[in-house]
Amino acid sequence: MPSTNLTFTDRDAHRAWLASQAALPAGFRVGCTRFEFMPKEAPKPAKMTLTMIALSEPTTAFAAMFTRNAFPGAPVLIGRKRLAEPALGAIIINNKISNVCAPGGVEASERICAAAGAALGFAPKQVLPSSTGVIGWTLPVDAMVAAVPQATAALTSESILPAAEGIVTTDLYPKIRRATVGAGSIVGIAKGAGMIEPNMATMLVYLLTDIAVPRSELRQMLARAVDASFNAISVDSDTSTSDTVVALSSSQVPFGDWGLFERGLHQVCRDLAEDVVRNGEGVRHVIRVTVKNAASLGLARALGKAVVNGPLFKCAVAGNDPNVGRLIQAIGKHVGVHAPGTNVSKLTARMGGIEIFANGVFQLDPTKETALVAHLKGAELYQSKPTADAIFSAPIDFPPHERAVELEIDIGNGAASAAVIGGDLTHEYVSENADYRS
Amino acid sequence: MPSTNLTFTDRDAHRAWLASQAALPAGFRVGCTRFEFMPKEAPKPAKMTLTMIALSEPTTAFAAMFTRNAFPGAPVLIGRKRLAEPALGAIIINNKISNVCAPGGVEASERICAAAGAALGFAPKQVLPSSTGVIGWTLPVDAMVAAVPQATAALTSESILPAAEGIVTTDLYPKIRRATVGAGSIVGIAKGAGMIEPNMATMLVYLLTDIAVPRSELRQMLARAVDASFNAISVDSDTSTSDTVVALSSSQVPFGDWGLFERGLHQVCRDLAEDVVRNGEGVRHVIRVTVKNAASLGLARALGKAVVNGPLFKCAVAGNDPNVGRLIQAIGKHVGVHAPGTNVSKLTARMGGIEIFANGVFQLDPTKETALVAHLKGAELYQSKPTADAIFSAPIDFPPHERAVELEIDIGNGAASAAVIGGDLTHEYVSENADYRS
Repeated sequence: MPSTNLTFTDRDAHRAWLASQAALPAGFRVGCTRFEFMPKEAPKPAKMTLTMIALSEPTTAFAAMFTRNAFPGAPVLIGRKRLAEPALGAIIINNKISNVCAPGGVEASERICAAAGAALGFAPKQVLPSSTGVIGWTLPVDAMVAAVPQATAALTSESILPAAEGIVTTDLYPKIRRATVGAGSIVGIAKGAGMIEPNMATMLVYLLTDIAVPRSELRQMLARAVDASFNAISVDSDTSTSDTVVALSSSQVPFGDWGLFERGLHQVCRDLAEDVVRNGEGVRHVIRVTVKNAASLGLARALGKAVVNGPLFKCAVAGNDPNVGRLIQAIGKHVGVHAPGTNVSKLTARMGGIEIFANGVFQLDPTKETALVAHLKGAELYQSKPTADAIFSAPIDFPPHERAVELEIDIGNGAASAAVIGGDLTHEYVSENADYRS
Repeated sequence: MPSTNLTFTDRDAHRAWLASQAALPAGFRVGCTRFEFMPKEAPKPAKMTLTMIALSEPTTAFAAMFTRNAFPGAPVLIGRKRLAEPALGAIIINNKISNVCAPGGVEASERICAAAGAALGFAPKQVLPSSTGVIGWTLPVDAMVAAVPQATAALTSESILPAAEGIVTTDLYPKIRRATVGAGSIVGIAKGAGMIEPNMATMLVYLLTDIAVPRSELRQMLARAVDASFNAISVDSDTSTSDTVVALSSSQVPFGDWGLFERGLHQVCRDLAEDVVRNGEGVRHVIRVTVKNAASLGLARALGKAVVNGPLFKCAVAGNDPNVGRLIQAIGKHVGVHAPGTNVSKLTARMGGIEIFANGVFQLDPTKETALVAHLKGAELYQSKPTADAIFSAPIDFPPHERAVELEIDIGNGAASAAVIGGDLTHEYVSENADYRS
């Protein structure tokens, strides 16, 4: 469940709320610049935003986690090396091109780090690069280096909102979450929206705090928080080559209650993870699956993912169709192959709190059916309306509510539990990914 | 590759070809009847086809394989028991309702077997039941029992076409494949079209032969043939609760060359498996992935499935977009998680015979791009045309050709190979599964 229960009637109301969450922790500045360039691989100009996150001075307290994809982008290769550096002072982020498996990719990212470092007075190795966008294209390094001074000139210590806006691609709106911890805070931003099954997802997440946390504690806490949040979501089961979560501490606010800090970090990560799904490509319904009484945490998590990744069930949810047959099929598919010894006779399933399956048979009647349809419609984020030429796109640029389709699967065969969050499968997803050439 | 290279200009031409393939092996008859009934769980009448496949006398030479889903339908539960019976004389098949996790499901199927057996002069346990359709609904047993005499009266030894037509649900056309073996033949029919990732898929397949093959040899050969055909396809990664492949021999034609028989059986299974994908729900492009030089057969097969099940790549193919970045992402996602030690530096990838990736970087240029688009368009089965209210459905009721999007992934790190066949992800798939209430 999100830590909030927000509703917004329009973009302005959502932006006003974002602004109320956006105060930067002490010791950070962010700045962006947007420019046009000519991609080597395409016949027409494209636009890129360069976003800088800068500490007032390099910090030893930084942590980062990256995609498990076997073809990581050059920024991920560099990022892994940066973890061994004594300190980090800035992050330089571009959208539009992900710099994955492109010739000379590592050299390109290093040149941009050097330019950003020079503008800030930091060493090149004190700058972490991040890129998201088209896979395989080459970065326009000269244009990016030329844009660094504008990004630097735009740096502000007021609000993280420019960075939250600068890093997006197909996202419908920026995502900011915060937690107050003692006299300090943790503020995070995230970029979704497709290739989202983290381990991690093209998902870029930056978590900034002024609370003084030693490096090793920060890294351990980040690993646990990512595991329980970004690694428990899936929009489309695809794992990006660029997934990155970074946590930086400016160490300006002394604090010793790590338990409280970690709870704040988890809350920010969980809220951002859910925001990423809610704003996933084509997502009209967020689906939350809680698996209970499983033999292991691994089975609980994997079964939850199998349900939110089952195309037939996802389509049924998109159509507000409580097709519980497809749900049981998806459960049975996973258990049959991955946990074949499981006694499924005690398995019960609920949707929206309503029992739909128990004792090996469906528990349905017309009254329940009506209630299930109402539950699905209540969780819908927007109604689907194609254009005249049958192109579908989300008609909203704000999250109207934080409700989800709530599924509970009690295996009755163990003690482990997990919650997994995913989305439905819609015409909007297909239009986003098939009807436009990238 | 299919054993044929067929093209059809219209339904009539396809039907004429099907008729040319449809002669029943000696010792078999098939018959169907279609009737209306009132489902318990729905407010309006529905139609069901009851299909009977009957031997002139029960045979000891029968084999069957069933879904691995942990919630198998009642017919699957009964079918597994039938394998221990001394002989089988008939199969009774219904569409519309799959009889999965419905109260009293096993008793319902047994009653229908008893009625079919009585009509044919066989014991109830000499009849195998099969059901496909909505999950969770209860069979209209009385109406089905009442329809058995009409199905029996319709029995013909001329052609398998009535059965190929009787077993379908959302399939666009019937599927028949045959092989001549010595003085006999193997003739198979298949029902697709959704929930298709066999292990097995809702996929019902019946393979009839007059060649005398002992039970144990038939069972071993069927297991190998299914593994190389139906278990190497995936339309949507969903595994049905009803998947069934049955092989029956009337044992009327003596023959001793098991190698030749097995090659014929493999050919029929491979051709039917590819037909099932080609006629999969919403499939506009068949995608064939050949993985070479993998460390194990398991990795080769799983990597092929990961590619044909990657939603972003599937959408790109639907849009005739040679988005090789998404292909490499899908490969990297699988290898990174399931074979993390793999040295991917030697991996090469080809689409339509054109090298697109080698030495860790993309191998692309505008000429290749044009050729890749042409390859994708050449494999398209039909053009997408929505109705005025933006509902998408396939505008064909025949397979226009047998071409596929051909992908070759050479891992360069082992000696195992596998071919996997899947489909793209289209608006037609979403319309089929989200826009209509089942």
